Amino acid sequence: MIEPTRLSVSGERIRAAYEFTGPVDEARGRAEALAVEQTIEFPADLVPDDDIRGQIIGRIESLETTGERAVRVEVTYAVETTGFEFPQFLNVLFGNSSLLPDVRLVDLDIPPALAERFGGPRFGIAGLREMFDAPQRPLLSTALKPMGMAPERFARMAYDLAAGGIDMIKDDHSLANQPFAQFEERVRACSAAVRRANEETGSNSIYMPSINAPHRLLDERVEIALDAGAGGLLILPGLTGFDHMRDLAADDGVGIPIMGHPAFLGGFVSSPTGGIAHDVLFGTLMRLAGADVSIFPNFGGRFSFSREACSEISAASVRPIEGVRPMWPAAGGGMTMDRTGEMVTFYGNDIVLLIGGDLHRGESLRSSAAAFRAAIT
Amino acid sequence: MIEPTRLSVSGERIRAAYEFTGPVDEARGRAEALAVEQTIEFPADLVPDDDIRGQIIGRIESLETTGERAVRVEVTYAVETTGFEFPQFLNVLFGNSSLLPDVRLVDLDIPPALAERFGGPRFGIAGLREMFDAPQRPLLSTALKPMGMAPERFARMAYDLAAGGIDMIKDDHSLANQPFAQFEERVRACSAAVRRANEETGSNSIYMPSINAPHRLLDERVEIALDAGAGGLLILPGLTGFDHMRDLAADDGVGIPIMGHPAFLGGFVSSPTGGIAHDVLFGTLMRLAGADVSIFPNFGGRFSFSREACSEISAASVRPIEGVRPMWPAAGGGMTMDRTGEMVTFYGNDIVLLIGGDLHRGESLRSSAAAFRAAIT
Repeated sequence: MIEPTRLSVSGERIRAAYEFTGPVDEARGRAEALAVEQTIEFPADLVPDDDIRGQIIGRIESLETTGERAVRVEVTYAVETTGFEFPQFLNVLFGNSSLLPDVRLVDLDIPPALAERFGGPRFGIAGLREMFDAPQRPLLSTALKPMGMAPERFARMAYDLAAGGIDMIKDDHSLANQPFAQFEERVRACSAAVRRANEETGSNSIYMPSINAPHRLLDERVEIALDAGAGGLLILPGLTGFDHMRDLAADDGVGIPIMGHPAFLGGFVSSPTGGIAHDVLFGTLMRLAGADVSIFPNFGGRFSFSREACSEISAASVRPIEGVRPMWPAAGGGMTMDRTGEMVTFYGNDIVLLIGGDLHRGESLRSSAAAFRAAIT
Repeated sequence: MIEPTRLSVSGERIRAAYEFTGPVDEARGRAEALAVEQTIEFPADLVPDDDIRGQIIGRIESLETTGERAVRVEVTYAVETTGFEFPQFLNVLFGNSSLLPDVRLVDLDIPPALAERFGGPRFGIAGLREMFDAPQRPLLSTALKPMGMAPERFARMAYDLAAGGIDMIKDDHSLANQPFAQFEERVRACSAAVRRANEETGSNSIYMPSINAPHRLLDERVEIALDAGAGGLLILPGLTGFDHMRDLAADDGVGIPIMGHPAFLGGFVSSPTGGIAHDVLFGTLMRLAGADVSIFPNFGGRFSFSREACSEISAASVRPIEGVRPMWPAAGGGMTMDRTGEMVTFYGNDIVLLIGGDLHRGESLRSSAAAFRAAIT
């Protein structure tokens, strides 16, 4: 037994819900093990009746049998266990337990003190509506691709897309710093092309380069993007870390919209009984980490997300969280122009429609973009 | 159709193997889609017969039916698609395809040019054997816990563990910068305690603080650790990014051993038909990203990794990769002292035995540590 500990904690708690799949009568024991695993990771029988036991170990608030082999368990954690830092917040939610079989993080609520610390989107729904002078309509986005083209070709493409009225023209997430189109040259060319299109055609578009860079070069790439006049940033938190995105969103010296991309996060949603629920990952966590726009694969595309999962992501993007702005869901992944009507019916107007290769099928990229834009105005 | 592109590439290629689960006759089509998804993410029918088609799109090298509903497909990628940067390397391997159902990354080989660029472990097996003057025996490690204790108590614990002969005394992965034991105070106290134990008792231990910090504070935390005289670092690449770990391993100004922890990486191994094979993730990728020691949950503990998965992680840690040192596998997760014999039989001597709470069950922490050490010398 270790010596007793007295602690001062605020009483504010994070509320997480997990679904345990397996024999229902084993759920309580598994939940108790999880509540220890996510906090002290120490034999509970060696902890005396002190504040580590009372305040630090996760507290099981409720168990509810939700299926023949499914139990939903609500666990709360003292907000101090996170040190008010985002990486440790994720660690408390699901660090080691991500390695446990058949347990899934399915819901999450954070207290206002933590929400305020994290901040969330700088622009959110209202901010981007104002930026694009689009009080009601869905926003439009597309990606510069394919990898292998030279910077001037990406720039020509960016010009045409902006002239056609696409709001957010982002790098494809595959564009990093390849020899075919190195970051600085590509970003300067594309930023200039979109600026020129805005001046010449009255469009109001932004270019969002992908900041998928080695750790030591992240700041430099952002500085290049800002210096080039990029209008936003594409961030891949599965590769560069959620807190890098949060840091950019909170930085007044950056101050431009951020689009979060799901690359390398799919492992969390590849098992129906493990990982993290789609809406928690691509809705709540992306939003708390500062994404103004969160990309996910639309149902009916090539990624097999269900209609229900997409609907839940969309709901989590905008549900009230005190101190955190609502975020734009962005449904993409093999989307075609003829599905835009269906998508707006499904998601409503607070949706970013992300169309990829299909725009290249028309007579010209600019005319396809203009047709896409006309279809939703 | 886009305009044809001519490119200059080296011909060096990354070789990845994926297992597709589902109807065998659909595997080729799914593999072709993956090879496009991981590279150009653009309708293949719009790409002419040029170097984007010939060099950039992933190339299917072989398909082999390995089960009634399983096909193993080898795909190679031009090394230039990564831009020789680790985050984009991961993106090429499994960025978007992590979101596809029933496909698993199961094997990986990289060409020498890329291995040399990434570097891998600074110390590896031989380096740590020299550091701990342990030419043959397994190495021993344990964690400072539970969260909630004050720095001086962690320091007392660290002293006892070092005096008892534990080689690597790490922060528990749950210790970040909580108000109960803030990073700087804890790290200075524990570093000093281990130094004092080494001086007073002739032990040869190192303390490895956890650098689980917000993006903007990562460098500062490392600097504090170095200034305090910490002997190594614990890194959680699932939270702070694989490339942060690689950067630290490559940095001559850091120059101390790195232990990689699996927190928040479990999503990748929670589905048997999705995600990333255990040995690729906790063996090959941890190693390429510079971990001298890679922690994973031992079989028979509380995490349900199979014997086979553990054996494969161990094999991947040391298999020959030109230009990359072998890495120490570290099996932990609810391990007890009475299992050390079995573990050494299973893994051989090139293993870090990671014992947690069980050390606290003896008469004193120092005597338990000494008994643990005596059991393996």
